[in-house]
Amino acid sequence: MADTDWPGCGKSLKGVILDMCGVLYDSGEGGGVAITGSIEAVQKLKASDLQLRFCTNETQLNREAFVDKLKRLGFDISVSEVFSPAPAAVAVLKERGFRPHLLVYDGLLPEFDSVDKTNPNCVVIGDAAEKFTYQNLNEAFRVLIGLEKPVLFSLGGGRYYKEGDGLALDVGAYMKALEYACDLKAEVVGKPSPTFFQSVLNDMGLQPHEALMIGDDLVNDVGGAQNCGMKGLQVRTGKYRSSDERHSTVTADGTVDDLAQAVDMILKQRH
Amino acid sequence: MADTDWPGCGKSLKGVILDMCGVLYDSGEGGGVAITGSIEAVQKLKASDLQLRFCTNETQLNREAFVDKLKRLGFDISVSEVFSPAPAAVAVLKERGFRPHLLVYDGLLPEFDSVDKTNPNCVVIGDAAEKFTYQNLNEAFRVLIGLEKPVLFSLGGGRYYKEGDGLALDVGAYMKALEYACDLKAEVVGKPSPTFFQSVLNDMGLQPHEALMIGDDLVNDVGGAQNCGMKGLQVRTGKYRSSDERHSTVTADGTVDDLAQAVDMILKQRH
Repeated sequence: MADTDWPGCGKSLKGVILDMCGVLYDSGEGGGVAITGSIEAVQKLKASDLQLRFCTNETQLNREAFVDKLKRLGFDISVSEVFSPAPAAVAVLKERGFRPHLLVYDGLLPEFDSVDKTNPNCVVIGDAAEKFTYQNLNEAFRVLIGLEKPVLFSLGGGRYYKEGDGLALDVGAYMKALEYACDLKAEVVGKPSPTFFQSVLNDMGLQPHEALMIGDDLVNDVGGAQNCGMKGLQVRTGKYRSSDERHSTVTADGTVDDLAQAVDMILKQRH
Repeated sequence: MADTDWPGCGKSLKGVILDMCGVLYDSGEGGGVAITGSIEAVQKLKASDLQLRFCTNETQLNREAFVDKLKRLGFDISVSEVFSPAPAAVAVLKERGFRPHLLVYDGLLPEFDSVDKTNPNCVVIGDAAEKFTYQNLNEAFRVLIGLEKPVLFSLGGGRYYKEGDGLALDVGAYMKALEYACDLKAEVVGKPSPTFFQSVLNDMGLQPHEALMIGDDLVNDVGGAQNCGMKGLQVRTGKYRSSDERHSTVTADGTVDDLAQAVDMILKQRH
């Protein structure tokens, strides 16, 4: 990356938000593998005067299990630093009196233990992966189409992600399928929802211009953060594709090879 | 239906195009059941001076097997009268040099026997039903995302249909999922594509204003036909829902209880 690509916000920066899958690790068999240099990069950020939060659209595990997985990979991370869609959705459901029909991965179900799920009046979908069967999708569809006013919540709106050695459809694709079939617009909880990014900023007590988002997803990480007034940096790991660098609507404030390079350049700018 | 709802085109009418599933029969176990009065209604049309064609987005069976099924239900129908998306797609694929990766129901595969499917440079999806698995959708997605210029053909663009005693997602929903994931716009072959309706009109040698489409799908049957300059009549069978009668963009030229009522009124107007 040339210096001219750099957002040049290093000096005024007070906090960094990291996407997780594709930035810290690549998912796959047995929990995945850490991306080279990312464990040390997180250590360096924690040793700096910058605030650090993790912001993921991961919805296959509840936060406790997810953080345990990251710890096993070698990351210094705790549950309170991680923002994910399910807890945000639970808050919205309770606040607005919604009883969800859930189409989510088994590992995520514990997040919804405290929510009334009888006689559903909305549908919540997450990255259900193999649970996105024809039968389960029809079941969710029938709940929606049977409601006077169908409401669909989607935990994130991602297009696809890297799984092992291939790409897999993410929840956003299935959200679009149900939107079309039911002629509705889903409410996205998680990235790139501004409400979601704002909750992370609030937790750090920072203004948008004081924070930098680093992710591998140009639209949901970088574009979402930019829509909130943050800078957004894309890494060339995870789901990054070279065509991202000539995207029609989203232009990253900078593109770096990986998290290690991003962190080294941020910390260098501050000295 | 009040007479005021009627399109009043009976006298100038020269041809009728009938949708099949939801108009002639309801699908379900063992091939489905004929809708009351529809077998006789087809007989009456055939005995009249009107031309008759059948136009379906059915893509679970090849035309021969599909027509056999209808004959077993008691309908007087032949393959040459039936227009369905697969043969239209085969023509397009050959004309434009496309080698498809197919995500279609097993029963439809024979329609594509004459098409080169090695080293695919496009994806064709039909109503694959139970074959719309997470794995198969990811496979189709990976073919598309691996192409320099991804091209997706969808055999019809329906939202959902009635299957036995419930509604099921139709191919259009999965089309939208892949469109979103790959950031592309699919080419719909079949209803409501104007090219498809026009091929039926050409076969009858009629102008649009001389033909009437009768279907249960407000958007794809009625709206599609209207976009071509035909009149469109909706029946209150199949996937009809009362909310169709206050749809924001499509208004049928008439709404009748079933095909039997539609045919009786058409023939009465002509005497």
